Amino acid sequence: MDYTNARIGVLGAGAIGAFYGVLLARAGADVHFLLRSDFVAAREQGLVIEHAEQGELTLNPAQVYQSAADMPPCDIVLVCNKTTNNAEMAPLINQVAAPSAAVVLLQNGYAVEDELRAQLPADRHLLAGLCFICVHRKAPARVCHQAYGGLNLAYHSGPAADGAALAKALSTRFKAAAIDSHVLPDVTTARWQKLVWNIPYNGLSVLLDASTGELMADADSRALIAQMMAEVMAGAAACGASLPADLVAKMLAATERMPDYFPSMYHDYAQQRPLELAAIYAAPLKAAIGNGVNMPQVQMLLNCLRFKTQAED
Amino acid sequence: MDYTNARIGVLGAGAIGAFYGVLLARAGADVHFLLRSDFVAAREQGLVIEHAEQGELTLNPAQVYQSAADMPPCDIVLVCNKTTNNAEMAPLINQVAAPSAAVVLLQNGYAVEDELRAQLPADRHLLAGLCFICVHRKAPARVCHQAYGGLNLAYHSGPAADGAALAKALSTRFKAAAIDSHVLPDVTTARWQKLVWNIPYNGLSVLLDASTGELMADADSRALIAQMMAEVMAGAAACGASLPADLVAKMLAATERMPDYFPSMYHDYAQQRPLELAAIYAAPLKAAIGNGVNMPQVQMLLNCLRFKTQAED
Repeated sequence: MDYTNARIGVLGAGAIGAFYGVLLARAGADVHFLLRSDFVAAREQGLVIEHAEQGELTLNPAQVYQSAADMPPCDIVLVCNKTTNNAEMAPLINQVAAPSAAVVLLQNGYAVEDELRAQLPADRHLLAGLCFICVHRKAPARVCHQAYGGLNLAYHSGPAADGAALAKALSTRFKAAAIDSHVLPDVTTARWQKLVWNIPYNGLSVLLDASTGELMADADSRALIAQMMAEVMAGAAACGASLPADLVAKMLAATERMPDYFPSMYHDYAQQRPLELAAIYAAPLKAAIGNGVNMPQVQMLLNCLRFKTQAED
Repeated sequence: MDYTNARIGVLGAGAIGAFYGVLLARAGADVHFLLRSDFVAAREQGLVIEHAEQGELTLNPAQVYQSAADMPPCDIVLVCNKTTNNAEMAPLINQVAAPSAAVVLLQNGYAVEDELRAQLPADRHLLAGLCFICVHRKAPARVCHQAYGGLNLAYHSGPAADGAALAKALSTRFKAAAIDSHVLPDVTTARWQKLVWNIPYNGLSVLLDASTGELMADADSRALIAQMMAEVMAGAAACGASLPADLVAKMLAATERMPDYFPSMYHDYAQQRPLELAAIYAAPLKAAIGNGVNMPQVQMLLNCLRFKTQAED
């Protein structure tokens, strides 16, 4: 596979979609964005990334659409919407993804590929995309990038005889746009690895109204995060993920080195958007329990977050 | 023992102390109150209970003091301050408690008797007082009573040959003032029984900014409370408490029948008073862990509460 001249579709250009799409487009790729609330702003002013190292990166004009039906068929489809909208995404993905296209889910959570697979034609490749990035949407069509920018890939399913080779070809395309990208051996391990970070920090930022910096500066919340990560590691192992034993220590240290950051769930809660509780909490809890491992603190966090969001309905 | 004509000292007349002290005084007992912030109001207007069934109960004049040195020696000392002040209470208790007095800790938490015992002369009886009551301080020297009013007793230590008989004599005195009062077989069981309620409701009311009614109306918080109670039951069993197996179901049902209630920790947090985290959380956690049982959700709640209070220092 060679994706050098691939046409790329970005579905849902929030912070993640805009960031990677703009980098790819500015590096010469033919990128098409499906937008909703940001469509007018993006058409009039383009898409803007306030990049932590590179300053303001603008893509103007950007090829933006309000309807998937108007988009050309794409060889790579980056699915960047929140998982809370996944139920309605399959028809849009199928409209945009050309035959044999690579569909990459740049989403948080667990089992999101399994849920989509059944609705995807057999000839489409499906991959997990794991973003390691601190980024948030600052205003319509304007994204603030704070740190990092990795996009790792794991082949989930599809017609490829060698899924890793296809993932490698995709990562080569991303690297050509100066996006750090590696191929991970399996989706289960890749998903759990990200959950080790997402499960404590996303939920606790909402429950305790705190940034990563505040959570790491306090001995009690830091200890809680370490305990909760240990629970997730146990759940991961029960589900067959092979995570390195020192992952928790490395993640804690990496988070301390990060700029002060409010995870995506914090922004979702502050802006009264639905939280990704099903993908980030309920799905991994179900998988771990199904394999005989309870994660009581993760369960407690989910219950508290559900209470907080239901109480405000 | 006969406590019919016993002189009673009440140390710390917040909601609990004022409630029981006023009932005892109105039933003819000689009751002396040691007050701090409420002293002036109590001296000028007396102590007032807005009783859920009996309307406004006033004790005016009330025998109130600002200094323990001014109080007469008492045969019964009801210790009603928050456990957060316990470090400074022992000298005051020793000043007020007559030789052979019964010192009753009407406090929440675990191991509070153990901590005081070392500082109490050997001839003083020490008892746990378990209040089952919905009551809060509404204004200086004014208490709002919402429901219940039980005061159960368990003999902890002292010179009594038959501790249960002494506790029985005390409960007889309380019953004569129309206070529902029973003798419980042992302090460990009595303390853990109350913790089964206090641990989930006190902390979650702060963490989720919610009353008991709100916590019970939501399926997720209700399920969390049941899980956390199960953890406390396991901790209790490991520490040698003998609690009935149906206690969780009974407590959930009883809480649903209660009027909507904000536990004491909610009021403490709202009024920026120190929370009783050491007595209600840290002490039972330490005891359970010492007996080989983890309570991960209880631990998480403690860590979250510590974060919330430290973050606001």
